[in-house]
Amino acid sequence: MDIKDYIKAVAAEVDAALERFLPSAERMPQNLHKAMRYSVFAGGKRVRPVLAMAACDAVGGERQYVLAAACAIEMIHTYSLIHDDLPAMDDDDFRRGQPTNHKVFGEANAILAGDALLTEAFVLLANDSVDIDPEIRRQVIQIIARASGSAGMVGGQVVDMESEGKAIDLPLLEYIHIHKTGALIRASIEVGALLGGADKEQLASLSRFGELAGLAFQIADDILDVTASQEDLGKDAGSDEARGKATYVSLLGLPQARQRADELRGLALESLNGFDVSAEPLRQIMKFIIERNS
Amino acid sequence: MDIKDYIKAVAAEVDAALERFLPSAERMPQNLHKAMRYSVFAGGKRVRPVLAMAACDAVGGERQYVLAAACAIEMIHTYSLIHDDLPAMDDDDFRRGQPTNHKVFGEANAILAGDALLTEAFVLLANDSVDIDPEIRRQVIQIIARASGSAGMVGGQVVDMESEGKAIDLPLLEYIHIHKTGALIRASIEVGALLGGADKEQLASLSRFGELAGLAFQIADDILDVTASQEDLGKDAGSDEARGKATYVSLLGLPQARQRADELRGLALESLNGFDVSAEPLRQIMKFIIERNS
Repeated sequence: MDIKDYIKAVAAEVDAALERFLPSAERMPQNLHKAMRYSVFAGGKRVRPVLAMAACDAVGGERQYVLAAACAIEMIHTYSLIHDDLPAMDDDDFRRGQPTNHKVFGEANAILAGDALLTEAFVLLANDSVDIDPEIRRQVIQIIARASGSAGMVGGQVVDMESEGKAIDLPLLEYIHIHKTGALIRASIEVGALLGGADKEQLASLSRFGELAGLAFQIADDILDVTASQEDLGKDAGSDEARGKATYVSLLGLPQARQRADELRGLALESLNGFDVSAEPLRQIMKFIIERNS
Repeated sequence: MDIKDYIKAVAAEVDAALERFLPSAERMPQNLHKAMRYSVFAGGKRVRPVLAMAACDAVGGERQYVLAAACAIEMIHTYSLIHDDLPAMDDDDFRRGQPTNHKVFGEANAILAGDALLTEAFVLLANDSVDIDPEIRRQVIQIIARASGSAGMVGGQVVDMESEGKAIDLPLLEYIHIHKTGALIRASIEVGALLGGADKEQLASLSRFGELAGLAFQIADDILDVTASQEDLGKDAGSDEARGKATYVSLLGLPQARQRADELRGLALESLNGFDVSAEPLRQIMKFIIERNS
């Protein structure tokens, strides 16, 4: 299995599903639906849906049960990017090489498109067109909501903003990453496992994998910010530094940051020891993301 | 029964529950939790939770099953007010006589406090501490999410913003109100009924009541905007007109707007004909809100 083909295939499946699940741009209010679709289809790599599907594969589950939740997570991830880019937040004009949502649709519409994507994610999670055990469905909604709220993604974003331009230490940096990006990555894996029929032990192992992988991806991202060119990133390279943002690289230096990413990758792979070849996609994704970025 | 006492009692019950359900302001990130609590406890009248409880009463249900959903709806309502008040939206400095969220906590924190309230509402809805039939729970989440998203509240807000300063007709004005405020009011009543154990016929009647009541409340609100003083409102009286917002009063004139509110009140009360004295709270709330406002 070539992991690039695997990622490409899952991403295509998710894109097609998002096309169906998102409200049509023909339907009123058209501008809102256009704004929602603009950012959802702005070239995201679908990392979270791919991880959810790979976790489902790891426990031998059927992907059809994961598809809606994977798309809901991608919608939540997209809303968070739209709001992060707003003038009152990071004030970014470009994301993945394209103008940010508020540059195209205006600030008010960007706020509302984010609000709508977050809300429609829960419409999708509560949709009963696929037959999912109701108690599992409740757990899935709970995991995703918790990972996205004040004890997860939003909480991390608040602390990240508060820390800009300040000297912070490693524990606070880890708090930010575990909450801001780690929580939803871990939730993607947990949800994929749950909907794939994981037992308690499998769920615990995959949850641990998700925790370690989330942090490893973030360190790799910090490394990429200083080593890649603007063209590679679709945004300004070195933008974290310019913004006075603490990163693993600024706190640890490049060699130590690389070492920490490698360490976490090793621990993450260890947590998959109880799985056979079915967890190969998860293992390969882990290696692929770290190697691409560092 | 004095309806004012009924409303006061339910509001107190909801306030106490919100106090428990919302993340503590002592917990990190403190600023986020303070901002969330600031707006939730800024003097809201708890109209939606009261309607949910009254709908539960109408079908002889037990209120303990409705409390979390009623609080979740109030959290969603509060998030919508925080975002509506933002500089990029209505740019309001005061709400209910107090500085708006972004005036106190800054724009970025206000956006994130809104995001977190919306998300934590779903954390609460997915919480299993109260024993609710899982299929009913799914329906409750679906109803609330749909009423809040692009086919409901957010959709109405987008069209409302797009229509500012433009000549709009009555059908478009009704579209705005049915979506922007009507959808969540109707959802409150449906959810209260469902969690109270309503059968299909009862649910349909109460849903119809919610639809008519939601519109009637909005017309009453439009009337209040021109007839009340600034002191009564806690915001600038006549602010709709100053902002070039079309209202029932600007489109129909004051006497006709009053007649339409009366008509809708009559139809709403009619939809409760199949209910005995148990629906008295709903009937009285209807009368109370319309009379206070017109």
